[in-house]
This record gives sequence, C-alpha cells and structure tokens, in this order.
Amino acid sequence: MTDFAATRAAFELPEGVIYLDGNSLGPLPRGAADRAARVMREEWGGMLITAWNRAGWMDLPGRVGDRIGRLIGAPAGSVTTGDTLSIKVWQALAAATRLRPGRRVILSDTGNFPSDLYMATGLCRLLGDGWRLETVAPEAVAGAIDDRVAVLMLTEVDYRTGRLHDMADLTARAHAAGAITVWDLAHSAGAIAVDVTGAGADFAVGCTYKYLNGGPGAPAFIYAAPRHAEAAEAALSGWLGHAAPFEFEAAYRPAPGVARMRVGTPPILQLAALDAALDVWEGVSPADLRAASIRLSEAFIARVEAGCPDLTLAAPRDPAHRGSQVSFRHPEGYAIVQALIARGVIGDFRAPDILRFGFAPLYLTLEEVERAADILTEVMAGRAWDSEAFRRRAAVT
Amino acid sequence: MTDFAATRAAFELPEGVIYLDGNSLGPLPRGAADRAARVMREEWGGMLITAWNRAGWMDLPGRVGDRIGRLIGAPAGSVTTGDTLSIKVWQALAAATRLRPGRRVILSDTGNFPSDLYMATGLCRLLGDGWRLETVAPEAVAGAIDDRVAVLMLTEVDYRTGRLHDMADLTARAHAAGAITVWDLAHSAGAIAVDVTGAGADFAVGCTYKYLNGGPGAPAFIYAAPRHAEAAEAALSGWLGHAAPFEFEAAYRPAPGVARMRVGTPPILQLAALDAALDVWEGVSPADLRAASIRLSEAFIARVEAGCPDLTLAAPRDPAHRGSQVSFRHPEGYAIVQALIARGVIGDFRAPDILRFGFAPLYLTLEEVERAADILTEVMAGRAWDSEAFRRRAAVT
Repeated sequence: MTDFAATRAAFELPEGVIYLDGNSLGPLPRGAADRAARVMREEWGGMLITAWNRAGWMDLPGRVGDRIGRLIGAPAGSVTTGDTLSIKVWQALAAATRLRPGRRVILSDTGNFPSDLYMATGLCRLLGDGWRLETVAPEAVAGAIDDRVAVLMLTEVDYRTGRLHDMADLTARAHAAGAITVWDLAHSAGAIAVDVTGAGADFAVGCTYKYLNGGPGAPAFIYAAPRHAEAAEAALSGWLGHAAPFEFEAAYRPAPGVARMRVGTPPILQLAALDAALDVWEGVSPADLRAASIRLSEAFIARVEAGCPDLTLAAPRDPAHRGSQVSFRHPEGYAIVQALIARGVIGDFRAPDILRFGFAPLYLTLEEVERAADILTEVMAGRAWDSEAFRRRAAVT
Repeated sequence: MTDFAATRAAFELPEGVIYLDGNSLGPLPRGAADRAARVMREEWGGMLITAWNRAGWMDLPGRVGDRIGRLIGAPAGSVTTGDTLSIKVWQALAAATRLRPGRRVILSDTGNFPSDLYMATGLCRLLGDGWRLETVAPEAVAGAIDDRVAVLMLTEVDYRTGRLHDMADLTARAHAAGAITVWDLAHSAGAIAVDVTGAGADFAVGCTYKYLNGGPGAPAFIYAAPRHAEAAEAALSGWLGHAAPFEFEAAYRPAPGVARMRVGTPPILQLAALDAALDVWEGVSPADLRAASIRLSEAFIARVEAGCPDLTLAAPRDPAHRGSQVSFRHPEGYAIVQALIARGVIGDFRAPDILRFGFAPLYLTLEEVERAADILTEVMAGRAWDSEAFRRRAAVT
C-alpha cells in the first residue's frame, strides 16, 4: 500500500491553503530545495566546470528520463529530458512526419492544448509541400483516422475538461491506418496510470512541473519507442544530440536512440530539482494513485453538485474517462476562482468559462477536498465572487 | 572606474583554484545561490501557482532580456530569454530565411561552433527546396558574401582560437549584398564590448552561462533588430510567444516584437539565478572590462611563450582581433590540461589539439594569471602531463 501520509510529508505546503492546482504547478518537495542548494554551492560553486563530469551533470537528462520512464511504462534508455514541452512536441512531430513519406496530414483534436496545435502549424508551414494540420472534435477522432494521416497527435487528458482519450485504442486505430502517434502526457504523467509500451505509442512527450512537481519551468521529456529510435530524425539537431559532442565534428551524426533528442546544454538547476522531486515517487503504486485520485474527484463532484446548482460539470462523469482533474463551467468562472483563492482554495481558470481543479493524492487529503467543496458552495451561495476586485483579469491565473 | 575588487568579492571561488574556464561555465555569484533559494522557498513553496503573477515570473524572460540588452547595445524590448542557444540559433535563422525569399544559401564559417552548423543543416533539410548551408574559412567570409546569400550566420568570437570577427564590417558587407545577419555572441556577451545596434546586426543570439555567470544550463537570449521584429516569424511558434497565451485561441497570433520568440514555460529557477548573476554587472564599464581583459591575456601570452616553447599560439596575436580567451596548440593538449587541473589551474581542451584559457576580469587578477602561466611552464618543462592518468579522456573536459 502506498503511504500517502509519507508522500504528503515530503512537500512544503503553505498553512491555510488547499491546493487544487498541482495540475498547473506542483508544490515544492522539501528535497528539491535542498538538492538545488547543494548543486549550486557544492557542485557549481565548488567544482566549477569539472562538475559536468564529477557531479554527473552530463548524464542527468538521461538518468532523469529513465526515472520518468518508469512512471509511464517506458523501458530504460527510451526517455530523455530537456527543453520545454512545446519543443519536444515539435521534435516528436518532425521525427514522425519523416517516418511516413507520401502522407501530408497531422491529425489532432480541438481540445488539444493550443501550443501543440501552434507548433504543428509552424512545422507544417516550414515543411510546405502540402503539409497541414487537421483538427476534429475529441469524440470524432476515432472516425477521422484514415490513410491520409501521417501523424495522429493527441493530448491524452484534455487540459480544460479532464476528458481522457483511450491511448491504446486510438493508437491501434492509427497503426491500422498506417499512421504514427505522438501522445502528449502533460496531464497524464503522475496523474493516472500510463503505459506507453502497452499502448503501443510511437512517441510521447510531457512536462514535469505539473503532477511530477519538478518546479516552475522544469524540463520536458520525450519518449521514442525503441522500434523507431534509430530511424527517428532529430530535426532540432543540436550538439548534445550528436553521437560525440565533444569531438566537435563538422557534420551532424545523431547519438544512438532517444539521446539524439537532446539539443543544447541541459538546465542543471531545474533538472536537479526535478530529480529530487521524483524521489517522492519511489514506492508509489500507479494503481493506488489512480484509486486515490478517483476517490478525491468523485467526492468533490458529489459535494459541489449538491451545493452549487449554478455550476455545470464540464468533466466526464465516468471516472474511467477522466484524468485527475475536475472542471465546471460558469460564465463568471474567472471571478469565482479569484474568490476561492482569496479564501485559500487554489484552483484555476481556463478561458472562456472553465473552473479547473486538480487532485494530487501525493499531498491532498479527502478532508481538504471536502472543505474546498464547502468553501466553493459558500462562495456560490453568497455570490462572494461578485465584486470588481475578483473580476479584473490578470495575465495569468 | 570599474571596481574589480568588488566584482571579485561577489563570487564564490574555491580555495586554491585559478579559474580560466569562465568562458565555458562562469563561477557562482553569491547572490545567485541566495536568490534561487528564495525563489524556491518563498515563491514556489509559498505562493505556488500564484507566483506567476505575484512574483513576476511571467515577465522574467523579458526583464532579464532587457538587462542583457544593456550589455550588448540593444534597446529595451528587443531581447528575450529562454531555451538553449541552439534553439535560439534555429529561431533566428528560420526568421531570417523568411525575410529573403528567392535566396537559398546560409553562409557561415568552418570556425563556427558545430551546434550552430548542425542546427542550420537541420533547418535546411526541413525547408528543402534547395536550401543549403555553405561554409568557408573564417578569413574567407568577407569575400564569399554574394547575392545568393540569404543569411550570414557567424559566431563573433571563435570558440577554439578566440579570433574575433568584425561584426560591423561583415554586417555592412552582408547588407550591401542584400543578406540578413545572425550573430552568435556566446563568447562575446560579457567578454568584449558588444554593440549590436551600432553594428547594424539583424538578429543576435547568445548563451548566459559563460561570461554572464548564469549557471549550468542557464537560458539563452535572442535579439531581433526593432526594424525586423514585427516581420520576424517565430518558426517555433509556442504558446508563450502568442499575443494572448491565456486566451487559449485555436490559431497562433504572434506577440508584438521579440516576445514572439518565447516558446514554452520559462525555466524560472535558472532565470532567477541568471537575474541575480547580472547584478554583478551593474557599474561595470565595457571599456574597463575590455582593457582589463586585454591586460590579462597579453600578460598570459607573454609569460607562456617565454616559458613554453613547445606550445604554439592559436589565438590572434593582435588583441584587437581576439576575444577574451587565449588558445595554444599541442598534440598532447588534453593531457596537459588535465595536469593543470590537478595543480589547481582550470582551463579546458577542445579537440583536436587546443588548450583554451578564458580571462574574466570580474573575478580574475593579474597575479593569478601570472601564476597560472608559471604552473603551465612547470608542467611543460617537467613533462608532468606525460602519464596515463592524464591521457585518459573523459566525456567532457
């Protein structure tokens, strides 16, 4: 049995806050702050340039990648880390397009995170030659996969609604039509049980500052199925993806396997914080995590629906079709979220009308979730959100 | 007058080490460690997601960009930060290629850093349609600029030899031929006096972990001349380069100006460390810095040439044609550098035969530089490098 009291104790959580926004930025693991301080003073400060070897910095992207691999069902050596999720989406897409010459369509859905769609559009524009992104409604994806599709690019869990795609089923359909899949696991890794190997995924990418608690701007990860790794082209062919970066050869030669997806100098401070954050996952069973997440989200939905008739559930009602977040709709969603934050309940707002609440069993208790639902009920009943101060939108929420 | 005793006191420097490798990784500014600790505990730990607004994280890439802008002669609002240098090279190149439709050549030199050449090759491959990278010897660049050239991509200071290109002259020649320039300032920013505006540069990029002391994997920067900023296309069109990222629009609309060159979620821990590292530059005069750098490198060359007849100067003899580093050649360069490191003098080796020494007046004294030359003289005179232990090459040096 996973000891969730122990995992909760591993985090610094501010007094008086119920944090339902770990799906945007996970909280600070105590070990991450200590590790970053040590890396700065002892490694950077004390070893200077020699830390690249002596402190093992050069291999950190792959070592951290392997730890993430264990959380998503990827074998050792098939995941590396670095850059941002948008860059890794681009790399996976560019590699995938090369594997299906003759086809010209990247298929995605309208619920995908906009940056994934923007990156795909930008790639198509550079590729020219008829390449285009096509999007359909999430529920229409299965029916839209045909033999024009080179790449099926989907985010497994919808960032607004929490709707969960069936990765294994859609991957099988894509393969049957001769397409390659790129899965974005931003809201999956650390949130639900993920098995890229079992699902047959070709490429997968994700970020680490949400449920993996790696910190603001923590690096992204990329998985290439071993069957593709040697054929995959690293379109962003930087020196640290070279087979022998320190030979400084004039021509690019890709490193073996997924290591070719490294680009430039890795962000060591962020990687070290992430590495420490992953310590919390040792001993966490994916099945326990999923069961606890469903328990929390079901309790929240029941209590909010009972108390807040004006909020409309935007997440799938069946937990089997939901990630680890719950969303409601309301035209004044932004102001409601601000009123909640003022009362110590941190969720977030996603345009145009989504109130979004993430459930991370590593540090969240059933009691907190119930109290959060009660506070939301008070805010709605008393129209506590109805003030100018709460309605004024800031750049980020 | 710049107070170099004060700037030196701002760094944590290990006892017994003479550090001549700040051109690879600058040492730890005391303020950077304190700032990173504060960002982790007070902002990430204490404010959680709300720190994106409350702690000003969202604007940090531009604020830090403006501070770097002041060191390279760029106006406010023309520089942003993020990603790695290789990614920023790609973005600048991709934007530049779009500004010269009809042409198909990116011109560079064989002394350029390999990653820049790799990224250019990768971009040409994606663009197809006859796009190609052509390289000539560094001294042949001026004569090779013709009306086939869309983009002239150069690194101002050669990473091996320290040779300095004349940015203003080559930019003027490029413009006369109708080409766009992309300047890599990796070994220029914080090393020499740089004036991208005066030189008329179109795009410039650089890293911040060398002379700017931002820490291992600190983010890169990119400058777009204001005359191009609104026309420049962000080929890696990520959500944080969108005009309104938090509207989550289906279609990409670039942010005004250089902000469109942002891609994904910024690495806040690295950016905060870099921001603190830039504090050291307040009050440093570029002219004083350049004069001090030349004093140090001239003293080093004179003393090494007097004591080490087997070492061949690989850097330009005229300091006006040199950056802030000095290189020598020797077939056993790797082992010699290892023997020096064992004696507390940290320089580095660059394949195939370059011993490389960087001079950063912010924390390096003339006395240290002379002592380093004396230790190198002892190592050479006694063949102290001639041992198996020093000859065994590690992955990074």
